[in-house]
Amino acid sequence: MIGTARRRRDGDAKVRGATRYVGDMPAHGLLHARPVLAADAHARLLAIDTDAALAVPGVVAVLTHADLPLAGGSGRAAEPLAREEIVWAGQPVALVVAETEAAAGDAAALVDVDTEWLEPVLDLEAALADGAPAARLTERAGEDESAASAHGGSEGGTEAAGGGSPNVATRQRLQRGDVDAGLAAADHVVRGRFRTSWVHQAYLEPQSTLAWVDPDGTLVVHSSTQGAFMVRQGLASTFGLPMERVRVQAAPLGGAFGGKLMIAEPLAAAAALTLRRPVRIVFSRTEEFAAGNPAPGQLIDLELGAMRDGALAAIRGRVVGDRGGLGDMGVEALSTLLAAGPYRWPAHDLTAVGVTTNRVSPGAYRAPGAPPAAFAVETLLDELAQALDLDPIALRLKNVLVAGDRGLDGQEIKVIGARECLARLEKHPLYVKRDELPEGEGVGLALGFWPGGLEPAAAICKLDADGRLTVVTAAADMSGIENAFIAIAAAAFGLPEERVRVTTGDTGSAPYGGVAGGSKVTYTYGRAVERAAEQARERLLDVAASELEIAPEDLEVADGEVRPVGTPGRAIAIADLAAKVYTFGGRHRPIEGYGSTAQVSRAPGAAAHLSHVRVDRETGEIRLLAHVIAQDVGKALNPALVEGQMHGGTAQGIGWALLEELGHTDEGQLQGATFAEYAVPSTDQVPEIEALLVEVPAPDGPFGAKGVGEPPVCAVPAAIANAVAAAAEIRPGVLPMTSARVWALLQNAPVVR
Amino acid sequence: MIGTARRRRDGDAKVRGATRYVGDMPAHGLLHARPVLAADAHARLLAIDTDAALAVPGVVAVLTHADLPLAGGSGRAAEPLAREEIVWAGQPVALVVAETEAAAGDAAALVDVDTEWLEPVLDLEAALADGAPAARLTERAGEDESAASAHGGSEGGTEAAGGGSPNVATRQRLQRGDVDAGLAAADHVVRGRFRTSWVHQAYLEPQSTLAWVDPDGTLVVHSSTQGAFMVRQGLASTFGLPMERVRVQAAPLGGAFGGKLMIAEPLAAAAALTLRRPVRIVFSRTEEFAAGNPAPGQLIDLELGAMRDGALAAIRGRVVGDRGGLGDMGVEALSTLLAAGPYRWPAHDLTAVGVTTNRVSPGAYRAPGAPPAAFAVETLLDELAQALDLDPIALRLKNVLVAGDRGLDGQEIKVIGARECLARLEKHPLYVKRDELPEGEGVGLALGFWPGGLEPAAAICKLDADGRLTVVTAAADMSGIENAFIAIAAAAFGLPEERVRVTTGDTGSAPYGGVAGGSKVTYTYGRAVERAAEQARERLLDVAASELEIAPEDLEVADGEVRPVGTPGRAIAIADLAAKVYTFGGRHRPIEGYGSTAQVSRAPGAAAHLSHVRVDRETGEIRLLAHVIAQDVGKALNPALVEGQMHGGTAQGIGWALLEELGHTDEGQLQGATFAEYAVPSTDQVPEIEALLVEVPAPDGPFGAKGVGEPPVCAVPAAIANAVAAAAEIRPGVLPMTSARVWALLQNAPVVR
Repeated sequence: MIGTARRRRDGDAKVRGATRYVGDMPAHGLLHARPVLAADAHARLLAIDTDAALAVPGVVAVLTHADLPLAGGSGRAAEPLAREEIVWAGQPVALVVAETEAAAGDAAALVDVDTEWLEPVLDLEAALADGAPAARLTERAGEDESAASAHGGSEGGTEAAGGGSPNVATRQRLQRGDVDAGLAAADHVVRGRFRTSWVHQAYLEPQSTLAWVDPDGTLVVHSSTQGAFMVRQGLASTFGLPMERVRVQAAPLGGAFGGKLMIAEPLAAAAALTLRRPVRIVFSRTEEFAAGNPAPGQLIDLELGAMRDGALAAIRGRVVGDRGGLGDMGVEALSTLLAAGPYRWPAHDLTAVGVTTNRVSPGAYRAPGAPPAAFAVETLLDELAQALDLDPIALRLKNVLVAGDRGLDGQEIKVIGARECLARLEKHPLYVKRDELPEGEGVGLALGFWPGGLEPAAAICKLDADGRLTVVTAAADMSGIENAFIAIAAAAFGLPEERVRVTTGDTGSAPYGGVAGGSKVTYTYGRAVERAAEQARERLLDVAASELEIAPEDLEVADGEVRPVGTPGRAIAIADLAAKVYTFGGRHRPIEGYGSTAQVSRAPGAAAHLSHVRVDRETGEIRLLAHVIAQDVGKALNPALVEGQMHGGTAQGIGWALLEELGHTDEGQLQGATFAEYAVPSTDQVPEIEALLVEVPAPDGPFGAKGVGEPPVCAVPAAIANAVAAAAEIRPGVLPMTSARVWALLQNAPVVR
Repeated sequence: MIGTARRRRDGDAKVRGATRYVGDMPAHGLLHARPVLAADAHARLLAIDTDAALAVPGVVAVLTHADLPLAGGSGRAAEPLAREEIVWAGQPVALVVAETEAAAGDAAALVDVDTEWLEPVLDLEAALADGAPAARLTERAGEDESAASAHGGSEGGTEAAGGGSPNVATRQRLQRGDVDAGLAAADHVVRGRFRTSWVHQAYLEPQSTLAWVDPDGTLVVHSSTQGAFMVRQGLASTFGLPMERVRVQAAPLGGAFGGKLMIAEPLAAAAALTLRRPVRIVFSRTEEFAAGNPAPGQLIDLELGAMRDGALAAIRGRVVGDRGGLGDMGVEALSTLLAAGPYRWPAHDLTAVGVTTNRVSPGAYRAPGAPPAAFAVETLLDELAQALDLDPIALRLKNVLVAGDRGLDGQEIKVIGARECLARLEKHPLYVKRDELPEGEGVGLALGFWPGGLEPAAAICKLDADGRLTVVTAAADMSGIENAFIAIAAAAFGLPEERVRVTTGDTGSAPYGGVAGGSKVTYTYGRAVERAAEQARERLLDVAASELEIAPEDLEVADGEVRPVGTPGRAIAIADLAAKVYTFGGRHRPIEGYGSTAQVSRAPGAAAHLSHVRVDRETGEIRLLAHVIAQDVGKALNPALVEGQMHGGTAQGIGWALLEELGHTDEGQLQGATFAEYAVPSTDQVPEIEALLVEVPAPDGPFGAKGVGEPPVCAVPAAIANAVAAAAEIRPGVLPMTSARVWALLQNAPVVR
């Protein structure tokens, strides 16, 4: 079955509304929590008057920071409610817990927060200036890079301390070779400044956690999370519990895209630990926008040079990333690594600067930092090709990383299919005929890549007495990963897929596995599943060998049977073998296998895009006419699902490119915190997407598969920007490329921010 | 730590009432079920009028057999409510389901069951007679030996069909050698008839199950059960579900002793499947006695001969076991195997007869069939020693099975410590001075054994990031088995016990493991835990070797550290190593292990008892003055717990011997269905018990351990009966040896039944 398109196993229940998300889970004696969000972007917290809220019938408690049983930890989890200082408009300052959702909501509006206004720091450039006011005056709970690094970044490089501004939280530098000399010797140098917006992950299901304390003191958490073990570790650390006293079950995810890691859990857990009753928190959509953890705004300055023949000479740049009010989390280091693109550079000097502002605490969003980085570097490469009169694909092919090259982090690349993706588009009619388009239309090309994350993972495969196989992992339900596990286990064990099922175990009983993120689930967990299934298959063959009195190596597994090679008449059904095992007095060990993995070689993903646009010179509107994506997926275990990832990633890239932006007022108030105002692409804004699967097998991936979730989003804004350049001879430097911004560019007017 | 006495890990929570049993589990929208029990012992079921019951406020449904979504299966599980025929007084005929327990109870009393009286069959001998009325007229749902065989019996032997009575459900014969010739050549032959009562397991927590249906259609069951996987298999079969659609979690057990297997589960599950709401059933004490599955009454005829020097010549006998009204389950075959005792017999001919009567369906109770069997054979051996003027221990030592012998089932015995147990008592002051006692006192000796069950089992051991180890199995919480797993895993992995914890996983995510019963959990699961811990330790050493750059074989694990042999200064704490593994980008596989086992060699357990009694000739009262048990436990992982098993088994044996009997009227009505009337031993009836641990290591057991749960109960009634013979020169042939029965014997009057 591997390589043929099948329906999603989980699709039916999700479409019918039968999937039970955390918000749907029944719980006896359940309390409902609602956060009280700060109104000011920056303020001293003077007092919280909870009397009116507590008077609302059904309200059980109004918790503030001092009430929480915090014991340590770092970052946002260690400070789930504001301590003495409010650092963004939307920061949770109190938590109302009530018998009903309505009572909690009513009471939250009655909590009176008394504050003293402090000057907010909202603009990245202003925040960086010498003598800028500080976005945070009090010490923060700690720093935690784990959520950012969970998405695949190796930060590497050297660190440089300090800065002139009180808001510089981190500064990292990746440097090799003589960039000054390289740029001086280059035949052509291009440079630019690029600004990208805060973008929300816009998952349909909001952050949701249900927590309670079992009678033995175990904190039990069912959460819409990407990483059960990460949440366990975070909660154990935050509340000072041994890990064995925290049990986390990853519930079905209604979308996550990197954003569901320890945002709602500390709130629900703190309340459950304090009140000793089950507590659920489900963010409202407005709370999502105001207090979630969207992708941060970035400011990228990049300068790169090349020789006349297109050989890249050197790259220099700085990526400034917004770290919001807590300053504990950023993606700028990752973005810096990606700003060089998947290319060979004789010299590079790239600096990442993380800046504290009075914005929400950012998080990871599908290929964190990649769309801004690709937007910058691919725009400049397009300019370079134009300036040197080179074919854009030819320019990239000349410089693109191939197996055996070393990446910016110095690690040798074992496999990468970027070249093959470009080659796939070279002959595409849209590319070949890109100069034959009507006035106002253009085709742009861009290449994106994603290094791919690594994290240990394990799995169990167990055959039941009725001859069905169950795969057990702790992997969260991301992107239909269940389907990949089924495909891998079915193929490795030798059963039809309909007899294989996946169970997501909790942290108490499932083997370890890392976060579902970083495009690594198939690559890491998948390999563990494959090994577990292979081990279980060995046990099956041992049982069959014993029953048939034939050596295991003379047996084969096919059609739900084990049979001697060449004499299919002596076959035994797998279900019949299983029945001999799982019985009192059974003489065979269970037909089960355990597999684990710690991949050490990455299998980066790459995707090249062609975007065909029409630019309306009167209105500045960009209309997408067609989009082609060629992505190296290693091996498509189920092409239907892989294409779904390519479509979804492209659609989200279109949001980055044209629509999405969490704006704020001069006082730091969030603008447009509902789906009515925050513009994710609608179907009429997404053109037909042609998905071309390129298969460059990953040697260490299961059946050659590699991660496919993040690569498709990376270069979409860049491709659209390059198409706009081709269509209208303007170079947008700001995302999203709204009609107003494009119109302003077309008028040669200053860019609208 | 292994071999030293420690406190029970689970003791504190149980003593404080903090353990959450099924009856304590919160569940949202929970319904409560109450069975309606048949009043007649035998009747045709004409109609069930549920109108009055349904009119009780809060009643949701009154289910009868026709309402249940039954799809197959066999035995009691396939017929959880009576179909067209009532076959015992107490058989569930309907199930009331209501919003509250009180409403369910009120309504159950209002269900009107219309029946036509049929002649009940209540006495074993009468049931066996030619032309006896049939205890059941209609066909039953099927036959299932699994619960009986789950307790260690290999039925073996040949089968003979039929019988003159319509009530003979099964007949099995174990035969080898020429018994007629053996008995004819014997210098002395003794024979006797022994009758034993129905005895309830008398667990404190009644049968309890909570069941619901998840939105994906999975039947989820939390149950006070000894076998999660067995329940899953049974429910899948009963309701026609794939096993993966049934998820069973074994909840903490408040006692079970063999009796908690598929009694309450089909009722709760049927109601949950029908009503699609969570349903809990918790038997009342009266329901326990009337509709549980107690140990059945037995009738044993035994005849055995020996040569003058004590060499046993031959044994012949018949064990008739009551199978109750459903006839689906019996322990007579096992009892037959045990009726020969742990001795070498040149010839044997033993027949098991299972008889249908109008009594409750029987079940397993701690060493099913063994106390009656040992009562019979050890009484006769005592008579034989007396007749041949041989020392009772010497007679047994001459014939006792030793390693290398073959048991009655023909299997070679790899290890057995029966001889060592006898030898341990030979010099005991109570035995040595047994002829120097005051008038009316006596000391009796008896030897019991238990073959030990076998069933495949598996376990996972996983080190957490904080350096604590979790053991995951599906084993039910029997007899503090958690403590054994902790001891085994701690020793095999190399951590102090306080850093090891056990999790009972559900059937969806835990590896397979058999029923907790048959004295096999330590022997089978324990071995799997040991292997899993060893494999995890290997992974730990690999990580340490890589971090320390020292070969794994040059490392040792001690004091929570891994250190190079000879250079403890370079030690790394296990927690520090773990922290390097469970992290993004971690280069080491999880420190986890999977272990499984399918023991093929039994490690029988044996226990010899000395009982010191005084018999009051005026009243017939037997007063226990002292009791000594010498038990071969292989290796006592925790002597405190092992002694607890020896004490508990002896106390339950005292109940068998002197007190316990589920009596019935001539119409088949149960007598004394409460703890106020059903006499379990109270503390003043249990003397000081001296527990002597004999350790004959089991080669295949973890650290030499073998099962210790069932052996201690087997020979208690026999030892007491032999003490009574020594004290009062009577030979009781009926259990329990109530004062009335003993008084009658003393008066040479007919035995009171």
